[in-house]
Amino acid sequence: MSLNFCFIGAGNLATQLAKALQLEGNFITQVYSRTEKSAKELGEILSVEYVTSVDSINRSADVYFVALKDSAVEEVLSQMDFEDKLVVHCSGSLPLSILDNHSKNTGVFYPLQTFSKTRNVDFRTVPIFIEANTPENETILTNLAAQVSGSVQLLNSESRKALHLSAVFACNFVNHLYNISSEILKSKDIPFEVLRPLILETAQKVQDMTPEAAQTGPAIRFDQNIISAHLKELEQNSDYHQLYSLLSKGIFEHHKRLE
Amino acid sequence: MSLNFCFIGAGNLATQLAKALQLEGNFITQVYSRTEKSAKELGEILSVEYVTSVDSINRSADVYFVALKDSAVEEVLSQMDFEDKLVVHCSGSLPLSILDNHSKNTGVFYPLQTFSKTRNVDFRTVPIFIEANTPENETILTNLAAQVSGSVQLLNSESRKALHLSAVFACNFVNHLYNISSEILKSKDIPFEVLRPLILETAQKVQDMTPEAAQTGPAIRFDQNIISAHLKELEQNSDYHQLYSLLSKGIFEHHKRLE
Repeated sequence: MSLNFCFIGAGNLATQLAKALQLEGNFITQVYSRTEKSAKELGEILSVEYVTSVDSINRSADVYFVALKDSAVEEVLSQMDFEDKLVVHCSGSLPLSILDNHSKNTGVFYPLQTFSKTRNVDFRTVPIFIEANTPENETILTNLAAQVSGSVQLLNSESRKALHLSAVFACNFVNHLYNISSEILKSKDIPFEVLRPLILETAQKVQDMTPEAAQTGPAIRFDQNIISAHLKELEQNSDYHQLYSLLSKGIFEHHKRLE
Repeated sequence: MSLNFCFIGAGNLATQLAKALQLEGNFITQVYSRTEKSAKELGEILSVEYVTSVDSINRSADVYFVALKDSAVEEVLSQMDFEDKLVVHCSGSLPLSILDNHSKNTGVFYPLQTFSKTRNVDFRTVPIFIEANTPENETILTNLAAQVSGSVQLLNSESRKALHLSAVFACNFVNHLYNISSEILKSKDIPFEVLRPLILETAQKVQDMTPEAAQTGPAIRFDQNIISAHLKELEQNSDYHQLYSLLSKGIFEHHKRLE
């Protein structure tokens, strides 16, 4: 079964997902974004029409992917009438029910990955979490997800919200810690690249170990000399100081409970 | 030039470094650890003598590697007289000068990686940072490091301390965030493995991008709806709540400065 798709939103996720679906032979009819630049960029990548006004979104697609930032979803949806077309959002944190008043056929298609526009991702390894308002729509979306990914699972809105929260810690916050490391190094003119093997190994370790078993460093050893010296180094930056204290305490207490 | 090594300490780093040096054809004469179990384990891995009393450490090695946790270094060293043998510590945070009273020949050999006893690391990719009290000792240690690693650099004690601090953020704290993610998932019976592709991609992204360019997520978009919902989810755990606030604020403020 070949379906036609319209993308409402042209950000990082929309770009990567639309490309992956198109590669599998699916037909993208149109791309909408509120910003001309994003609409044009994705329209050109996919060689499809792009529009910047909600009124110009055509009614000919079978499935509408809403891939906007959460705070924009309701506003854009309120201007649309999808009748009985399948409308799908891609948000970790929004419930399925947010689509209730907009169509008789609704679903969620949530790929758990960090997407950037210019970096291609191997979609086969990206877990996709599906939810839908009927078993039929569940099947449509599950089959669709299986076209691009080797890991497709059903998940309800409440669990998806927790999954998204866990991803914020494991990805967005982790990346910010990389950034803090980079700033600390800059103060001594050490290039960030020296940390890259360590960063990669830290992530690779938990590919076959649990994070508990993988933990190393001064906090788990409760090496008070180092911890005090590090806190002293961070005295000038109260946020970093507070983060260091909280995270060290967390590591120590967690592993104490395990003993 | 073939050298004989003695390892004082038999933890994660000592195990991996001693194995890597032995693989290159170097001779390990002896292993010391305060704990019988660790001493025996490493002694058996390397097929060398192991001892658990400082008095039994022999004087026949050319280089003594002190790979103990920082808080134990001074106590063990105070019981030793190395005369003019080259004594090297492997700590990120201790200065070279801590060895001043223990030998005329001193150095630091600091491999920047997270080591576990049972997980083999490809030492070729591990950056090693060298410091020594004379140019001759610097050369000995630089050559030695180049046997096992493709990345060897000189670094003074002050900069090494900042490097170690940055590594605590990029590795130990990052791993603790993985652990927090795992706990959040557990509360909904979602297996940790769903996060593994995300964790790996997050680390892989910064192998050729800066962490600044790689940042994604609700905080950088300032998606207040999601942030508020997540904070509500974390209400029961004040440490996680505080971490979420601090890290989100940090991401948002950092990227606002860049705009």
